[in-house]
Amino acid sequence: MAYRIAERMKGAQGSIIRELLKLANEPGMISFGGGSPDPDAFPSEAVARISEEAMRRQPAKILQYGISEGYPPLRETLKKHLQATEGISFEDNDILITSGGQQCADLAAKLFVNEGDTVLVESPSFIGCMNAFRSYGGRLQGVKLHEDGVDLEALEKAFRQPGISLFYIIPTFQNPSGFTTSAEKRRKVYELAQKYGVMILEDNPYGEVRFGGEWIAPIKAQDPDGRVIYMGSFSKTMAPGLRVGFVVMPKDLFNQFKIAKQATDVHSSNLFQLACDEFLNHWDYPAHLASIRALYRKKGLLMYDEIKKHAHPSLRFAKPQGGFFMMAYLPEGQDAMPFVQEALKRKVITVPGSAFTTDPAQPNNGVRLNFSAPSEEQIVRGAEILGKLSREMLG
Amino acid sequence: MAYRIAERMKGAQGSIIRELLKLANEPGMISFGGGSPDPDAFPSEAVARISEEAMRRQPAKILQYGISEGYPPLRETLKKHLQATEGISFEDNDILITSGGQQCADLAAKLFVNEGDTVLVESPSFIGCMNAFRSYGGRLQGVKLHEDGVDLEALEKAFRQPGISLFYIIPTFQNPSGFTTSAEKRRKVYELAQKYGVMILEDNPYGEVRFGGEWIAPIKAQDPDGRVIYMGSFSKTMAPGLRVGFVVMPKDLFNQFKIAKQATDVHSSNLFQLACDEFLNHWDYPAHLASIRALYRKKGLLMYDEIKKHAHPSLRFAKPQGGFFMMAYLPEGQDAMPFVQEALKRKVITVPGSAFTTDPAQPNNGVRLNFSAPSEEQIVRGAEILGKLSREMLG
Repeated sequence: MAYRIAERMKGAQGSIIRELLKLANEPGMISFGGGSPDPDAFPSEAVARISEEAMRRQPAKILQYGISEGYPPLRETLKKHLQATEGISFEDNDILITSGGQQCADLAAKLFVNEGDTVLVESPSFIGCMNAFRSYGGRLQGVKLHEDGVDLEALEKAFRQPGISLFYIIPTFQNPSGFTTSAEKRRKVYELAQKYGVMILEDNPYGEVRFGGEWIAPIKAQDPDGRVIYMGSFSKTMAPGLRVGFVVMPKDLFNQFKIAKQATDVHSSNLFQLACDEFLNHWDYPAHLASIRALYRKKGLLMYDEIKKHAHPSLRFAKPQGGFFMMAYLPEGQDAMPFVQEALKRKVITVPGSAFTTDPAQPNNGVRLNFSAPSEEQIVRGAEILGKLSREMLG
Repeated sequence: MAYRIAERMKGAQGSIIRELLKLANEPGMISFGGGSPDPDAFPSEAVARISEEAMRRQPAKILQYGISEGYPPLRETLKKHLQATEGISFEDNDILITSGGQQCADLAAKLFVNEGDTVLVESPSFIGCMNAFRSYGGRLQGVKLHEDGVDLEALEKAFRQPGISLFYIIPTFQNPSGFTTSAEKRRKVYELAQKYGVMILEDNPYGEVRFGGEWIAPIKAQDPDGRVIYMGSFSKTMAPGLRVGFVVMPKDLFNQFKIAKQATDVHSSNLFQLACDEFLNHWDYPAHLASIRALYRKKGLLMYDEIKKHAHPSLRFAKPQGGFFMMAYLPEGQDAMPFVQEALKRKVITVPGSAFTTDPAQPNNGVRLNFSAPSEEQIVRGAEILGKLSREMLG
């Protein structure tokens, strides 16, 4: 029969990247296309031991219904942690546990995006959240991203429009660009949001994966108006299979988030909320962070050095300071798709920058490269293949 | 600041029951108000052992990102299981794993309910799913439920209206009523849906918790048109803390569900999907079902017998044959709220029937009684208190 799909879903698409990744299993393929963490970074032993003990000591508590706002000890632990590490105050804010970072975007969209509203995103931006906004009928509009953050003139022009429900921003080690918004630009973004009455949805999944440069406070750390919703996740710092994320919101909005969460999936995993709480409190979380930072630093700098060694000088790319990604840019005006396709023939998967924009049909000169998932050997081989290809195509 | 909440969330409410249940922790309180399973019914040992082994043998697989459609072995196991036990064919259908049964309603609403659409529900019906429909801007309309299923005349009248996106039905051991739709009425509901071109969302969380009467095939077992979406869950047969449910849909809709799931929370728990799969295949699932059926049979019949022993003869209630609930009815036209409030003063929590309708302000003569969560001792004491109260109020 002919199905009538709701209007809101007409713009939603499957992730191109998830489809690309199916190629990653072909023999000899090197994938810089994904965005998964390195399994060596997972605190597997800790999660196994905490889980065993919890299932043995209090199975009924783990297996029974939990509460929608999240496991209370984890909420308290995160408040202290976010205050200490990110400077976020909980005097006027509260926190709710989600099923991964993605659900923060889903709940925020459910609560703030009316069908037909405009949601502003950096251009390029993270596909998963763009699809969450689309799935509530949000119309995406991209604002040009520079190396030090969004273009302020373009942002102000966009803010002037009516019907802006949210500005979605990943200020630190952005996916896909790897860029970090400067402290000054963060302040200016907030000032513009104040001037035009716009809510900010700040996503910070990579903030703790910093291996170079100086820490910069999140926008949420200075939010006198309560106009910033802050989302975080354990997917990159512990493991994505835990499906534990969190969203910080002004206290006035807590009950709305709780109702939305309850209607969506009742509550998140009791077991893994407990595991995150125990891990933060009773295992050496700073030592764990230091070890995963060292791991990703090694991989990120290796990719940077190896591409630099082989690439045509007009291929631009910045040295990564954190996160999982770097972006290489062909000369301005040159679409990256032929490069990506030729690389694929040579068994290296990359993702064209166009995939991360609101209109993937437009040419884009960026190529996203992931360094968290491939092995060091794959990084060396893949970087050489991409570098040589750039010399052939640009030389 | 003043927040502009999206239109769709204006009708969504927190669950009255979840608020009521906060009283349940007061000393001496007997709660017939909840709907949680008995922790004695959880296969705790199996889940602990399966989890331990999985975390030891393949931590990276458990902790890494999973796929949105669900753990492939569990999807295959469930296809066989649903074919064998419910008569659902997978020639034209497919299955996707969700984060609990609630997420089936969330995804179905996201895909089918345009804002302003009417969603038909049995009256009374399950609050959690009603809130999911409301959270997409669906307008709820109730169709009177009798002991053998929905009122067909009222259903046909409702189907005649334009803009009906879904008819949501729990045909077996319905929450809150405990009623089961007869085989004949199931056929007639389907015929009417065909006649008026309506999609059916069939929810069956309690089907396997049958401890009396004869099995009746779900509506989905005879669905030549592909107009039935079928939702199920491990929350009642294994444990709600697993957060594993599943949705069966015509193959043509599978990709849409996958996109919606991906945009919502990426994927469900790898660990507990594996645990459900292992449990169904390698532990004695039929023996487990037999033991939880015996447990709930004992409690359900105890509640029935004890209330019968003490109650005023004009309090009506049917002998439960499965599920977690029975409903007691005061004489027609008499609102149950004063009864519920007086019971609460005597330390027995029940839920007024009005809470399960589309307009809780309307008087309703039903009182929902849960027998899965309280202990046998609590059932005996609580039933006596309620029975005596009915004699005082009706005598």
